[in-house]
Amino acid sequence: MSRKEVFAVAQMGPVHLADSKQATVARLIEMLREAHARGARWVTFPELALTTFFPRYVYDDPAEYDRFYEEGLPSPAMIPLFEAAKELGVGFYLGYAEKVVEEGATRRFNTSVLVGPDGKILGKYRKIHLPGTKDPIGDPEFEHLEKRYFEVGNLGFPSFATPSGRFGMCICNDRRWPETFRTMALRGAEVFLLGYNTPTRNIHHPEPAHLREFHNRLSLESAAYQNGAWVMAAAKCGSEDGFAMIGGSAIVAPTGETAAMCMSEEDEVITVNCDLDLGAYIRRSVFDFARHRRPEHYGPITQQVGVEIPD
Amino acid sequence: MSRKEVFAVAQMGPVHLADSKQATVARLIEMLREAHARGARWVTFPELALTTFFPRYVYDDPAEYDRFYEEGLPSPAMIPLFEAAKELGVGFYLGYAEKVVEEGATRRFNTSVLVGPDGKILGKYRKIHLPGTKDPIGDPEFEHLEKRYFEVGNLGFPSFATPSGRFGMCICNDRRWPETFRTMALRGAEVFLLGYNTPTRNIHHPEPAHLREFHNRLSLESAAYQNGAWVMAAAKCGSEDGFAMIGGSAIVAPTGETAAMCMSEEDEVITVNCDLDLGAYIRRSVFDFARHRRPEHYGPITQQVGVEIPD
Repeated sequence: MSRKEVFAVAQMGPVHLADSKQATVARLIEMLREAHARGARWVTFPELALTTFFPRYVYDDPAEYDRFYEEGLPSPAMIPLFEAAKELGVGFYLGYAEKVVEEGATRRFNTSVLVGPDGKILGKYRKIHLPGTKDPIGDPEFEHLEKRYFEVGNLGFPSFATPSGRFGMCICNDRRWPETFRTMALRGAEVFLLGYNTPTRNIHHPEPAHLREFHNRLSLESAAYQNGAWVMAAAKCGSEDGFAMIGGSAIVAPTGETAAMCMSEEDEVITVNCDLDLGAYIRRSVFDFARHRRPEHYGPITQQVGVEIPD
Repeated sequence: MSRKEVFAVAQMGPVHLADSKQATVARLIEMLREAHARGARWVTFPELALTTFFPRYVYDDPAEYDRFYEEGLPSPAMIPLFEAAKELGVGFYLGYAEKVVEEGATRRFNTSVLVGPDGKILGKYRKIHLPGTKDPIGDPEFEHLEKRYFEVGNLGFPSFATPSGRFGMCICNDRRWPETFRTMALRGAEVFLLGYNTPTRNIHHPEPAHLREFHNRLSLESAAYQNGAWVMAAAKCGSEDGFAMIGGSAIVAPTGETAAMCMSEEDEVITVNCDLDLGAYIRRSVFDFARHRRPEHYGPITQQVGVEIPD
């Protein structure tokens, strides 16, 4: 038996500081139309897809950086995308900066939304593994201030019921943490959607350039294999106002094999007719969680945050 | 700063049912001497290194299978290896079938021992993720009865203080589970030692042959990168009485890159002069656990065994 469904990943080339959200959303809609023409029922767009990757810049006053955030869902800027997707019957994952009033306070998250092919909002995810710092490190080439502009996500790692099975969502740096995918898989997710913005240079430490893409691929492929799940990974890439980011957007099969990947650092759509049951044998055998997992021996994973040397 | 130490992985070709333990231990000692001559201070040997991979056979009576197990540490068969290692000042990891009386009962485990360069026993590990079945599936080509011949390990995933830093141990199928390595890393392990016996065909499901080695490599490389740790992985491989197993023994760097790997399916020693601090930048930056992990969102990893679909 196979359950086949065409998925698309829509990689984006750079979005510059001066680009309007309207122009950027028009690019997303063009890729959505291409994906639909190629048979896709689901499209994954990148993290923070509507603006440049603004956490590389130092701002102090919300009045300076509020323009990067979206309010309401769909936000005014998103409405044309939501309308086009509903018209075409295509569901999508979209990353954006979220500004919201919750518990009487203004809060900001690095968020993704999952919208069904019928235009209904199926759920939101707020990025949990925020990299970088809150305070500037003082080197404009390597600032990465996600902890300044976003709170740690407060929605956990849910799975979402869709007409094509259960999906999980995560964002960028989340993909380096096996905890991310295992938590979603234990909640039944069989497709992981994620967007990312990853500098071509390690912002923390000089390291051979080829490792950046290698670590991206290793993270995606191990996440897929270890959970018998499909991975849809969409980069925003190329050089944004001189800041270069890796591409390598990919659709990874539950075997851990990259089934398709982008060849450019520009706007580019890839599609795969995914057999959603391809991972079933992996989940029934080597990774039959119920039969083989031993949580009684995994205690430190949830009982401690950092390294603790035993006595 | 760098902390350099030469590590060896000693892969083994087949051990047949008819081979004596004495002859097999002589092969281990020969590789130990080669590793020492090439500067190694530590050697990793395979899982169940002293016998054929006997869980592929169906036995009912302990009198039939007792011969595969070791009693005492060192067991009589191991003594020449322990003596040679102490004489040379080389520490080692050795996998073996352990029979022991504990809490008044005879118990059997798939075990590894870590011995220091001074000949002292630093600790034991008992395999936790036992693959296969307890009862035969009825197909002699694909029996894998580890759950018949061993209990689930009861020593957790400790880390062991050694003169070269903290090591962790695991065995074969444990390497496919990210929980294994994360638990050891949270306890300070910076080198993971493991042995394996992996059939060249997926015993559970027909799958393309190349995936066997791909999944081995993916498991080792992701374990190294995600924890900024070295991995020493030693196969027993080749065809044991007609049952073929993969090689691919490897030393994997904390960057996730395979630094050295075996080219044969026979007895073969590989060595790397490992900078034990190579992973330090990874542990200080992207995988600084204390700064970035969010255990409050990882609950299902320890709170549930199998998949649970939320309401």
